[in-house]
Amino acid sequence: MFGSIKGIRAIRDTARRFGSEYAKPRKLVKACKQLLSERGEASGVSHAQETLALYAELSREDQLVFFLALKNEFSPDPQQVLATATAYATSPDSAHLAALTRAAEPARQELLRRLNRAPGGTRTIVSMRERLLDALPRDRELQQVDDDFHHLLQSWFNPGFLRIARVDWNTPATLLEQLIRHEAVDEIRGWNDLRRRLQGDRRCFAFFHPALPDEPLIFVEVALLNEMPAAIEPLITVDSEPNPAADFNLAAFYSISNCQPGLRGISMGNFLIKQVAGLLAAEFPRVKRFCTLSPIPGFRDWLRRMLAEAGRADTVSQTVRQSLDGVQRAIGPLLEKGVNELRAADRLREKCAKDLECLCAAYLLGVGEPDGVTRDPVARFHLNNGARMDRLNPAGDLSDKGLKQSLGFMVNYVYDLKTIERNHEKFVSGTTEASKQVRALVG
Amino acid sequence: MFGSIKGIRAIRDTARRFGSEYAKPRKLVKACKQLLSERGEASGVSHAQETLALYAELSREDQLVFFLALKNEFSPDPQQVLATATAYATSPDSAHLAALTRAAEPARQELLRRLNRAPGGTRTIVSMRERLLDALPRDRELQQVDDDFHHLLQSWFNPGFLRIARVDWNTPATLLEQLIRHEAVDEIRGWNDLRRRLQGDRRCFAFFHPALPDEPLIFVEVALLNEMPAAIEPLITVDSEPNPAADFNLAAFYSISNCQPGLRGISMGNFLIKQVAGLLAAEFPRVKRFCTLSPIPGFRDWLRRMLAEAGRADTVSQTVRQSLDGVQRAIGPLLEKGVNELRAADRLREKCAKDLECLCAAYLLGVGEPDGVTRDPVARFHLNNGARMDRLNPAGDLSDKGLKQSLGFMVNYVYDLKTIERNHEKFVSGTTEASKQVRALVG
Amino acid sequence: MFGSIKGIRAIRDTARRFGSEYAKPRKLVKACKQLLSERGEASGVSHAQETLALYAELSREDQLVFFLALKNEFSPDPQQVLATATAYATSPDSAHLAALTRAAEPARQELLRRLNRAPGGTRTIVSMRERLLDALPRDRELQQVDDDFHHLLQSWFNPGFLRIARVDWNTPATLLEQLIRHEAVDEIRGWNDLRRRLQGDRRCFAFFHPALPDEPLIFVEVALLNEMPAAIEPLITVDSEPNPAADFNLAAFYSISNCQPGLRGISMGNFLIKQVAGLLAAEFPRVKRFCTLSPIPGFRDWLRRMLAEAGRADTVSQTVRQSLDGVQRAIGPLLEKGVNELRAADRLREKCAKDLECLCAAYLLGVGEPDGVTRDPVARFHLNNGARMDRLNPAGDLSDKGLKQSLGFMVNYVYDLKTIERNHEKFVSGTTEASKQVRALVG
Amino acid sequence: MFGSIKGIRAIRDTARRFGSEYAKPRKLVKACKQLLSERGEASGVSHAQETLALYAELSREDQLVFFLALKNEFSPDPQQVLATATAYATSPDSAHLAALTRAAEPARQELLRRLNRAPGGTRTIVSMRERLLDALPRDRELQQVDDDFHHLLQSWFNPGFLRIARVDWNTPATLLEQLIRHEAVDEIRGWNDLRRRLQGDRRCFAFFHPALPDEPLIFVEVALLNEMPAAIEPLITVDSEPNPAADFNLAAFYSISNCQPGLRGISMGNFLIKQVAGLLAAEFPRVKRFCTLSPIPGFRDWLRRMLAEAGRADTVSQTVRQSLDGVQRAIGPLLEKGVNELRAADRLREKCAKDLECLCAAYLLGVGEPDGVTRDPVARFHLNNGARMDRLNPAGDLSDKGLKQSLGFMVNYVYDLKTIERNHEKFVSGTTEASKQVRALVG
Repeated sequence: MFGSIKGIRAIRDTARRFGSEYAKPRKLVKACKQLLSERGEASGVSHAQETLALYAELSREDQLVFFLALKNEFSPDPQQVLATATAYATSPDSAHLAALTRAAEPARQELLRRLNRAPGGTRTIVSMRERLLDALPRDRELQQVDDDFHHLLQSWFNPGFLRIARVDWNTPATLLEQLIRHEAVDEIRGWNDLRRRLQGDRRCFAFFHPALPDEPLIFVEVALLNEMPAAIEPLITVDSEPNPAADFNLAAFYSISNCQPGLRGISMGNFLIKQVAGLLAAEFPRVKRFCTLSPIPGFRDWLRRMLAEAGRADTVSQTVRQSLDGVQRAIGPLLEKGVNELRAADRLREKCAKDLECLCAAYLLGVGEPDGVTRDPVARFHLNNGARMDRLNPAGDLSDKGLKQSLGFMVNYVYDLKTIERNHEKFVSGTTEASKQVRALVG
Repeated sequence: MFGSIKGIRAIRDTARRFGSEYAKPRKLVKACKQLLSERGEASGVSHAQETLALYAELSREDQLVFFLALKNEFSPDPQQVLATATAYATSPDSAHLAALTRAAEPARQELLRRLNRAPGGTRTIVSMRERLLDALPRDRELQQVDDDFHHLLQSWFNPGFLRIARVDWNTPATLLEQLIRHEAVDEIRGWNDLRRRLQGDRRCFAFFHPALPDEPLIFVEVALLNEMPAAIEPLITVDSEPNPAADFNLAAFYSISNCQPGLRGISMGNFLIKQVAGLLAAEFPRVKRFCTLSPIPGFRDWLRRMLAEAGRADTVSQTVRQSLDGVQRAIGPLLEKGVNELRAADRLREKCAKDLECLCAAYLLGVGEPDGVTRDPVARFHLNNGARMDRLNPAGDLSDKGLKQSLGFMVNYVYDLKTIERNHEKFVSGTTEASKQVRALVG
Repeated sequence: MFGSIKGIRAIRDTARRFGSEYAKPRKLVKACKQLLSERGEASGVSHAQETLALYAELSREDQLVFFLALKNEFSPDPQQVLATATAYATSPDSAHLAALTRAAEPARQELLRRLNRAPGGTRTIVSMRERLLDALPRDRELQQVDDDFHHLLQSWFNPGFLRIARVDWNTPATLLEQLIRHEAVDEIRGWNDLRRRLQGDRRCFAFFHPALPDEPLIFVEVALLNEMPAAIEPLITVDSEPNPAADFNLAAFYSISNCQPGLRGISMGNFLIKQVAGLLAAEFPRVKRFCTLSPIPGFRDWLRRMLAEAGRADTVSQTVRQSLDGVQRAIGPLLEKGVNELRAADRLREKCAKDLECLCAAYLLGVGEPDGVTRDPVARFHLNNGARMDRLNPAGDLSDKGLKQSLGFMVNYVYDLKTIERNHEKFVSGTTEASKQVRALVG
Repeated sequence: MFGSIKGIRAIRDTARRFGSEYAKPRKLVKACKQLLSERGEASGVSHAQETLALYAELSREDQLVFFLALKNEFSPDPQQVLATATAYATSPDSAHLAALTRAAEPARQELLRRLNRAPGGTRTIVSMRERLLDALPRDRELQQVDDDFHHLLQSWFNPGFLRIARVDWNTPATLLEQLIRHEAVDEIRGWNDLRRRLQGDRRCFAFFHPALPDEPLIFVEVALLNEMPAAIEPLITVDSEPNPAADFNLAAFYSISNCQPGLRGISMGNFLIKQVAGLLAAEFPRVKRFCTLSPIPGFRDWLRRMLAEAGRADTVSQTVRQSLDGVQRAIGPLLEKGVNELRAADRLREKCAKDLECLCAAYLLGVGEPDGVTRDPVARFHLNNGARMDRLNPAGDLSDKGLKQSLGFMVNYVYDLKTIERNHEKFVSGTTEASKQVRALVG
């Protein structure tokens, strides 16, 4: 099937694995091919169901074998692709285009579409991808299989098919339990914690897909406040009194959590934030400002690298270089140690507080990056969505996790509907939108 | 963009149309390109909404111009396709495959996915395709645009995403009204008619898609009986008494109607019939047989052609030829006349009753067809689903429509779960599964 | 059990009827007594169910026998009542009061409460009362049985237990069908008629009780308009175009229908009108006026009586007397004839138009009534609710029914929340609140 | 208004309290009288609402004053009662009966019915009664007021109006939280505890009333098992593994909790148990036996009294007297001490184990009671429902509460549909249905 040496090797490889020891995945692959053939059409749903049942029996190792087979045996035939591409180049008409797209689309896409016909098919495909992502490091060429999963899931989990739902204390317990489990940003410690987050001055919204009606895909937690929050603790502490509604004039997104590892890379957060902003604006006409209180997960690692790579310092301004020196002197060795040491060194951190602020701003503004844009994933998410970086909060998150990741720093991003698009365009072309205040920190 | 002469002509063509007189579609095309560019991502939903609003303003003529632009300006670039295909043929790895599929997938697919993000997007895309299908005869090359609509809608309206729902007298009136409007097979004449079809010995099921929650996609009507029905009138007459449940041992599908012209060619009926059979088997354990009472929409036209094309008769058996002669003598000229003449000639039809049965069987068995398979669309649908042709009913439908289409003939197809798949395979390879009784008719 | 002669006679009477020919009601009465005894408590629900099953088997005649037994054998014991009343008069404490109320409450009340425990019990009790009301004329002493049905149903169908629901084209067909059947004021002729009444400029609301979830108790139909309507036809004609919402400033109640004859005399219409007014005021802030367009069902009969009873005319003013003379001359004899004659006499009616208006106003203002209040049931309903009589509409309803009942007259009542209570009080003390315009008609 | 001296004193009493210091309840009483007068009818709902708003402002002391006024000023007039009773005794016809019942029914009943018209009225009336029950000990004559609350609530919370609902992990959290709060029998310690009680081998059902849709009235917890349980701990421990459904053949009611103190004495548990048994029998055809695992809340107190009252021992058998001696010797003094001492004395309890069993059986069988029936409230509830006392479980509940109440004893009652009614009748006439095994214990 494949012309290239690599392809041949892959086939041999799979073939060998497909000895008696891989009876199960071999049987599954056979069922998949049957499902793809004409033969399967008349009883499509039950065949899909049987095929998924075979998948359910696979061990982790078996799954890898299956994924490799998806790569080796369900890819486009290069010669056929070339032939149809040549014909299309000669005469780009409907018939040639149809032949081309038929040849160029990996057969595993149609396979997934047919598997999806089974009851619970979508759920299984999402969890199949979760395993595939786990397996990816074991054979980088599985990337092409994941490309097809990603392509289809992106199409199926199109925002037009998602349903937004408010989650509150009237929501079934089975769903609330999932929130407790999935909370990614500020661990929910239990039902009481959660309860506080669902009271009158808090909102929680989730996206659902009709094919997974009981499982949230992603959820966002919002605090209704009267000023931009500087720290996470007051927002999530169980004891705090709910604010009266009359006081709300700002909504702060303080937590966004993805619940489905199998949907990694399927953009939903962007759409969710904007829909929630719309819903809140409608419910609270006096709420005009939308911001986040966000972690800076990569700051400490970046800082350690910067301190280590003396050479890199050349590409940065003198202010930044001086700040690096200051931090090195004050807490350099501590950065390599555990959270307890960091926490104990409160006063040392205070000594280099200004330097740390300068460096945190530098990190988020992409100082020293080849393309001028930060590597911080949370920052990239919000900036790409069109938010503006507004304010650093040095004592934003003094939990173990906060200290470990970012020495306690958090940051507010501001979503202003009028400038969202312009900011996004700037960001795409390499410019980070940030307040004067933040810019001033790097000198 | 296109290398071929045809492509260039197409562009010129569109360009000309895109003079001042086509301001609206031109504006829409521009919006579509913006939506596809990076630029559109930050406020995807609202851009999609604005773009669909531009589409809503187009006249029929404008729509044609837009569809032509979709063909001319959103197709794969042949040279780029060729380059990536060549690279992939040289080294069929993930990166080359990704480049290939990116190049080979028409940009209008991604365009439709992005339009789908808007509220009501799916609904608009389905109705857009309805217009496109209308426009197809005006430029056959629009086929490639429709291929992409079809491809995406097939993926989105995957049976795994459809919800089956029973329709009964507790269903909201707004939905029942749609059934009255869409009934394709035996016109429902009003609320009383419909009511009879929703009583205890009747069932009606429909498929719904979450993105069109208020609109049935396809529905099927079933009568619960104790013998295979030979005529449609007793099933749909308003006055008939409901059968007591104790008597049911057979379910007859007597009407299947598609409600969305924009979903033409998206296979759903197959899945619906099988799911309904499953539901009925669960509700009525004593119902063991599933059949249809189906129209034969192409019989009369085929008969007229057969009578006209004397030469064709060579490929058919002597029995058939004799029957053709018999019919020609008895009612030949009448076949060219209206329903009233046909109805008046009751006794003439009786005279050639045997001949007509022979010919109707011949038509449905594909006698004289190059591939040995009938052209009748309803027959092809059920045979391809794995049903068996069971019995001809000469006086099955004596309504105007029934006489006009098939001289009153109807036919029962039988769905037997055990043989469904085998029958389907046979049909695919050119053999029609039919009862001895039917076969015997052609001698 | 009874001390009085009448009581004894009643018992004998029932006893005779309870010969072999009344085996069924006798069995039912026995079951009722068992249900009331201690014995019934442990399996209350199933006993209640069995008892209702016995009732379901009764013929009309049997039902009468049963109702008579409810009167004769489930009434308070007069001697026991007297004894407890005497004790209470001597010492009005809790124990004596408890004994008194136990003795004075007819046992059939507790019987009904226990019957109500059965599934569907409430429904059966409501339909039982429907039969009882039918039977009332056959023995006026059944009144005391009906008093207990009324007492309990009034308590159970308390407005606090009713649920208001908007009825529209999304409502299940089974419920809409009931509206078509129950429409009391302006006969709905079918689905198309109904459809018009559920469009954007119309509203329909119904009261439901949780124990009869699928059956409306009473419903009201409202037209949203920009002026007070003068005739019913334009409101209910199928062809009329819906008014745009921007134009609404007035809501006209044009039909109120009770659906449950077994709930006669249980006041609900009053509460429904006021709740609907509240809902409409919330949905359409610009709708400030609420009125009715109401029939005058008793006008023609009153008029005939007035013309016949010359003596009665003494108690009325000279204007009224002159109008009576005018009408007598113009159409006196016609009033005794059928609708067709009345319709044909259009011009004669025109001739005495002023006189008819005077008399219609007189009728509605209670002219000549001993207590000064009209006997018209619709007028009494709205006036007692606190509405004001606002305008006569001589050509309000020219349908057969309208001509027959009121020679075509209709009337508008106006509901003004500010004066509702004052008007009601006036009405209770014998004064009818009416506009100057109406008052002026009687001179 | 009242003729008796007691009545007059009551009026004076209230009058005095109604000085300036009781302005609020006085205002409320005035509103109540207005609501009862004709005046209130036209805007009944809003008047009821205003009146309830006045109630909401009352302090506890004010509430007492209001309840006293309900007693003093809304009771039947003794003279009027006497007059109508005399008339009815003379001639027991419908008119006299109507006059009698009007006179004999306390006006506060109609008052409550009118208050009930307000939104949320039922809820307020239920909580009003909760306060009234609290106040009862302060003036025993308030009993007559409570009689009327009880009478109406009994009628309104008729089983025919209640809705049974299964509670599981899909139930809204707000409702589950109420279960945690109200669990009366075996304290639910939190969400994890609750979760175990809602898994596959457990069931929880609750009764709801349409006027309090979010508040369970009473709920019952059931364990599906394969043998009658002897101890509560294994049923409620969080760690236990759910039993597979195939093993179920018995359902054990292990907890029944009332949630509304304001509905005290309104019988619902009886009906709930029987409905649940029906639902379980339908869901699990193999579950044929229904039993409880019940506490014996009064055992220890009874035992202490028996040990103290030497004289009482005369009425009991010799076996019982010997057992009392045995227990006195072994743990007599300990019974007056705390739980810890009891727990520490494990071995002493073992020493008199037989004697304790004998005495527990004696207690539950009503030994020594004048009417031969136990005073234990839980036993009386189940026996009156028609259950049979089946087995004592000496180590049924070793929690603090279990030791304190019943020295660890629990008991199983068995519900057998075939004998329920017979058992109930026996119980009513003073005979306790118990197994031979239990009877044998008392010798």
